[in-house]
Amino acid sequence: MRIVRVEHQGEIFHGILEDQRVTRITGNLFSDFQVIDQSYQLKEVKLLAPLVPVNIIAIGLNYRKHAIETGKPIPTKPVIFLKATSSLIGPEEPIRLPKQHADEVDFEAELAIVIGKIAKDLSPEEALDYVLGYTCANDVSARDCQHRLDVQWARGKSFDTFCPLGPWIETELDPNNQGIRTRINGITMQDSNTQDMIFSVKEIISYCSQNMTLLPGTVILTGTPEGVGTARKPPVYLKDGDIVEVEIEGIGVLRNSVIK
Amino acid sequence: MRIVRVEHQGEIFHGILEDQRVTRITGNLFSDFQVIDQSYQLKEVKLLAPLVPVNIIAIGLNYRKHAIETGKPIPTKPVIFLKATSSLIGPEEPIRLPKQHADEVDFEAELAIVIGKIAKDLSPEEALDYVLGYTCANDVSARDCQHRLDVQWARGKSFDTFCPLGPWIETELDPNNQGIRTRINGITMQDSNTQDMIFSVKEIISYCSQNMTLLPGTVILTGTPEGVGTARKPPVYLKDGDIVEVEIEGIGVLRNSVIK
Repeated sequence: MRIVRVEHQGEIFHGILEDQRVTRITGNLFSDFQVIDQSYQLKEVKLLAPLVPVNIIAIGLNYRKHAIETGKPIPTKPVIFLKATSSLIGPEEPIRLPKQHADEVDFEAELAIVIGKIAKDLSPEEALDYVLGYTCANDVSARDCQHRLDVQWARGKSFDTFCPLGPWIETELDPNNQGIRTRINGITMQDSNTQDMIFSVKEIISYCSQNMTLLPGTVILTGTPEGVGTARKPPVYLKDGDIVEVEIEGIGVLRNSVIK
Repeated sequence: MRIVRVEHQGEIFHGILEDQRVTRITGNLFSDFQVIDQSYQLKEVKLLAPLVPVNIIAIGLNYRKHAIETGKPIPTKPVIFLKATSSLIGPEEPIRLPKQHADEVDFEAELAIVIGKIAKDLSPEEALDYVLGYTCANDVSARDCQHRLDVQWARGKSFDTFCPLGPWIETELDPNNQGIRTRINGITMQDSNTQDMIFSVKEIISYCSQNMTLLPGTVILTGTPEGVGTARKPPVYLKDGDIVEVEIEGIGVLRNSVIK
């Protein structure tokens, strides 16, 4: 099932997407929602980020080949950081290069987990029962802030528009074996598979839940594969006019333009 | 004016506290709330954290004498990090020492800013117009995670119960000259004044707003003065049974017990 969040004539609501039609749902997405008799063609509505997260947790250096390309040791446990929820945007919304830090803005394709139930102290075995579904994310990062100007990553990862999410939540997905790609202006920059994750989705959820209660609506970004702009020679950064596509097999394509 | 958030017979609402009475308010705390004709004695209600923040931004090393005690250079711009909003607790709720990281849990008394209006690209001069008020915070920190186990501070600062906030939002306060203290079991551990801040409240808001949009309900913790447990010889960490009080002049006392 594909869950979307859409705007239609100024109203915002969740729906189920099937065969290019959005059928509206009411109630709480995380407990007892109902499908109602009201539907729209996909082209009649604007797709938004599929939820407004309560927290955006992210995992650093979680693909083997990406850890290697950064020159850092393979982590022995997940590296947790946070992105401000104010950085959220949806599909087709522009990523804005921040005025003061426009020159080293990088892309990171990531599989995003959407937590559906209160999760605390989970074992890996039970972790997937707490997932509502999965979506695509771009963990946009100002590398000057992240690598040189700040010690903490929070600011460089939290500029407005730095968390594109979407296009929908796919509730049926095996997260352990899906292709994951980034294209810029049609050229493939990242091309990997979630099999290369160092910590799998269930291990990540278990670890996070042992460190904090995961509330329904928590989003966890699970790290990015190799091929990011900063690790290339010469580096490739996002620039005005670029089109960035994050594609995850079994979910779809999250597409955003880049503007100054 | 003192704004409280309370629970009364299972219902949660905001109110105005005056002369030990809470008068209920309805509507949006950040836009158009109304005082209604319904009031309770303070002792009839349970005080909760005065709001549920949309994001908790925090500033590291923002008091001169604290930067010195940590042996770190005085920052030349605010050091931004984030705490997960799931770490929130209210006055009188216990701080729980995390099972795996119980031995180096430290206190940090902080003046907390509550943002009242959407704030973006503010100058220091206009920053205070976007403040709803101020409250007390304890930026509880697992120093083993923060200093040795993790590079990023997010996890060590985001365990459940690691963000006590309260007891209320004081809307009338000069943030630039107020005493700020921590007592553990009645013994003073931190005793300073917000005058010792490296970046003042208006400079912090301006800086944060230039890096991300501050939504109404954003809380900014403004750093802690000298006297934290980890900088003492020998170090002093929180332990089962302790009572921690954060007191800020002009606001009040935020009191929490500590349990295993």
